[in-house]
Amino acid sequence: MPLKLNRLCIHTATTKPWSLEQCLAEYPKQGATGISIWRQAIEGRDLNVAKRQVNDAGLEVVSLCRGGFFAAASNAGRQSAIDDNLRAIDQANAIGATMVVLVCGAVPGQSLIESRQQITDGIAAILPAAKSAGVKLAIEPLHPMYCDDRSAVNTMRQANAICDSLGSPDHLGIAVDTYHVWWDPELEEQIAAAGRAKRLFAFHICDWKTPTTDLLNDRGLMGEGCINIQEISDWVDATGFTGHREVEVFSNQWWAADQHDFLKQIIASYVELFASEAKAKP
Amino acid sequence: MPLKLNRLCIHTATTKPWSLEQCLAEYPKQGATGISIWRQAIEGRDLNVAKRQVNDAGLEVVSLCRGGFFAAASNAGRQSAIDDNLRAIDQANAIGATMVVLVCGAVPGQSLIESRQQITDGIAAILPAAKSAGVKLAIEPLHPMYCDDRSAVNTMRQANAICDSLGSPDHLGIAVDTYHVWWDPELEEQIAAAGRAKRLFAFHICDWKTPTTDLLNDRGLMGEGCINIQEISDWVDATGFTGHREVEVFSNQWWAADQHDFLKQIIASYVELFASEAKAKP
Repeated sequence: MPLKLNRLCIHTATTKPWSLEQCLAEYPKQGATGISIWRQAIEGRDLNVAKRQVNDAGLEVVSLCRGGFFAAASNAGRQSAIDDNLRAIDQANAIGATMVVLVCGAVPGQSLIESRQQITDGIAAILPAAKSAGVKLAIEPLHPMYCDDRSAVNTMRQANAICDSLGSPDHLGIAVDTYHVWWDPELEEQIAAAGRAKRLFAFHICDWKTPTTDLLNDRGLMGEGCINIQEISDWVDATGFTGHREVEVFSNQWWAADQHDFLKQIIASYVELFASEAKAKP
Repeated sequence: MPLKLNRLCIHTATTKPWSLEQCLAEYPKQGATGISIWRQAIEGRDLNVAKRQVNDAGLEVVSLCRGGFFAAASNAGRQSAIDDNLRAIDQANAIGATMVVLVCGAVPGQSLIESRQQITDGIAAILPAAKSAGVKLAIEPLHPMYCDDRSAVNTMRQANAICDSLGSPDHLGIAVDTYHVWWDPELEEQIAAAGRAKRLFAFHICDWKTPTTDLLNDRGLMGEGCINIQEISDWVDATGFTGHREVEVFSNQWWAADQHDFLKQIIASYVELFASEAKAKP
């Protein structure tokens, strides 16, 4: 009997070889109820049509990924990032996504403190548009191995600090990704702090493989690695979070496999982790 | 005129294709005054002879690298790590190294908190032997990308905490490596804290390349990447540290190059960073 997994969301980049149409056809068949959409997947499309397609598939659009990259060496570069984020907010609104995930950016050789200030300023610049569109912004702290050119925000504490410094606006929060933050000795307390501030907006899951052979695209399917995903999920849920768990496995190895098999393995791994929530479709 | 660089030390693994004899012949010719020795480089040698060779070369043995790997799933594994560290202390003593650097270890899937406890217990077990041999132990915090299987100690704060928890013994301190800690938002204050506790024992330098194509062996020569090595060096020196700066560039790319050329580039990079200290040999 087919499953219905109320909190399982899959990120389209996880099954990168598939078109949006294939994702929309296959994810619900296997029990997923949410989809996170890579902006590349909707590039050049009529977003009204895409929104209808997603609705017809019965999937909730959990996140549009990704905005951010606010840090830049020049004023023009920073303005261009702000413009791009405004477009992302418009796209999210058009496709029915309630949240844009922010990979905040960094400039190699620029001090991380300076980059974080530029990130804070960039978020401040787009907050009014996000609020007016009813789209939430989720800062995703990235693993320190990405702080050269992808994000100067590398811990939950830093993400919480940026939200605080902007006055804790309702539309600004944090995306917790197990891959990026599992090593952090302050993880449990900073997740709790985000929960108390009502800013824990998203939860991404995948695993850390030993050895990891590529810094970008060698993530593990849940269970393939050493992250205690269940424990982190419990910390997240303890804040009152009841949203989707978004599977984000960026993996050259899995992308080279048959994507139908891969999707079945995603489901199997997910069900093994969260067995009590797996139930047959009504 | 040949240089003499009073604070330049080179780690034998930086010029991995060279034998110990080649390192001893070439480093001083180019101005280095210190050498850090990879244990593999002295495996199976008569250490009395090796010690004489190093003395004859006029080099100070700054560190023996490396001990550690205290975390293990079984009692037998943890005891075997302790035994190996006792051997490392003996080797350091025999070759005239005043310090053993500790890469503390981690077990994939074991909680990082548990691993840190095993690390603390392992260090406690070898401290008496270190003290009696007059050999210092330097905990090297490793980048969080190595916390799956190389080290559960990933920040200066954690290293300071382990030293504190063992009662701040004289022979226990910290090795600061720019590659591992440059991302840490607490770096400046934790370096200062280590200095106040008189436990900042060693300073390793190399750079972070963008992109980094290998998690282990794609480190950059100083200047090839985005780390502000000068700033971190200033923080280290502000504690009163006057020891050697140890060049640790583990790089498949540089190892494939002519090692004489590589050594010259190391010197050039070092002199560019620390120009005021470069002086002609007396």
